[in-house]
Amino acid sequence: MRNLIIASTSTIHGSGYLEYIKEDVLTALKEVGATSLLFIPFARPGGITHEEYTKKVQVALEGAGIKVVGLHEMQDPKQAILEAKAIFTGGGNTFVLLHELYKRDVLTALRKAIFSGTFYLGTSAGSNLCGLTVNNTNDMPIVHPPSLKALGVIGYNINPHYLDPVSGSTHMGETRETRINEFHTYHHIPVVGLREGSYIRVLGDKELLKGELTARVFKKDNKPVEVSPDFDFATLN
Amino acid sequence: MRNLIIASTSTIHGSGYLEYIKEDVLTALKEVGATSLLFIPFARPGGITHEEYTKKVQVALEGAGIKVVGLHEMQDPKQAILEAKAIFTGGGNTFVLLHELYKRDVLTALRKAIFSGTFYLGTSAGSNLCGLTVNNTNDMPIVHPPSLKALGVIGYNINPHYLDPVSGSTHMGETRETRINEFHTYHHIPVVGLREGSYIRVLGDKELLKGELTARVFKKDNKPVEVSPDFDFATLN
Repeated sequence: MRNLIIASTSTIHGSGYLEYIKEDVLTALKEVGATSLLFIPFARPGGITHEEYTKKVQVALEGAGIKVVGLHEMQDPKQAILEAKAIFTGGGNTFVLLHELYKRDVLTALRKAIFSGTFYLGTSAGSNLCGLTVNNTNDMPIVHPPSLKALGVIGYNINPHYLDPVSGSTHMGETRETRINEFHTYHHIPVVGLREGSYIRVLGDKELLKGELTARVFKKDNKPVEVSPDFDFATLN
Repeated sequence: MRNLIIASTSTIHGSGYLEYIKEDVLTALKEVGATSLLFIPFARPGGITHEEYTKKVQVALEGAGIKVVGLHEMQDPKQAILEAKAIFTGGGNTFVLLHELYKRDVLTALRKAIFSGTFYLGTSAGSNLCGLTVNNTNDMPIVHPPSLKALGVIGYNINPHYLDPVSGSTHMGETRETRINEFHTYHHIPVVGLREGSYIRVLGDKELLKGELTARVFKKDNKPVEVSPDFDFATLN
């Protein structure tokens, strides 16, 4: 039974790292009886080291009785993934994250763990990873992974940190909506634009929108639609 | 002798397509004696067809006595590139552009033409293409080219539509500067952040910043610096 929190961002404006989502995460960790959390630090936000990033997560969960261990420390990363009760993939650069996961050949193990009921938390790049592909990341392609195919533990793609067009902007770069429409020139995969503060709570067959905001759903040859909290994205499959 | 205009954008706010740069382009076309312009439409902005995009360029140059022909119409695209007096690669999605160029195996011909003195105009994705790699594009990776290696007709990379951090923004996505700094965790290639309205005029050994704005230069392990119009980027090599 799948058990995931797929979040747009780790941090909302004016709040600490993971703060807005901490209670929900701790509840989920308790429910699966996890006393440790396997952290995947490979996305390296701002280029920080795996050690620094792992420590940041440990600090954010201080006092909760959860030991955070980094996947980079594991001698057998596949085994570590398959044995973990809970896994968290942090945000940063999606290309770097995927490149490292392909290099270590752990995507299949990660997918297997998630479908076996291991609790998975993803934020930003870690949420991109849950989709069929990472074709809808906002990140700069600073490295070139062998493929953009991702975990496919949900039947659509995620665009995290979704941004509405800025009214009155004089900037000529593409809006997020234009970019996603261009994607649909080539692909049929639905895309969920998840605004900061929103997350998808996957539990068994349900994939419910959580948080206070609506999310924007893009399907090829359809006008985008806004869906409200508690909308079930499983209906997109 | 190289002869290029490498522009941040095709269009500045409140102005028509190519309007702000039209006079400089027509002067360059006249100097090389070009009566036709070979247009590379593959970046497909907004997903438009190659025919529509080629027509858009023809309309923008109306009255100048220049016939615009699309590379997609050519039976032998390599030969067409090598015989052209002037080539223009339009903006859109950099990944789509590069993917199509690799598919047609024309990058070497394009590089050869540019080093032989063919006038080259690039805007946005067409400018990204001039760098060593397209690792610094802002675009969404909607397709996956075999490599991010580009033309390398300049010794650095371009970040077009360069944007300064928005003061007071509550959005938690990375700033452009953060993204480029993350790039430098992995690469030594200098990056030029080129603001809308700016372009690089490459003529022989000179690579001068044109337009009214400064540009931002990023080098690994150095603080970014602002350079003024007429700065010679060839000194970065």
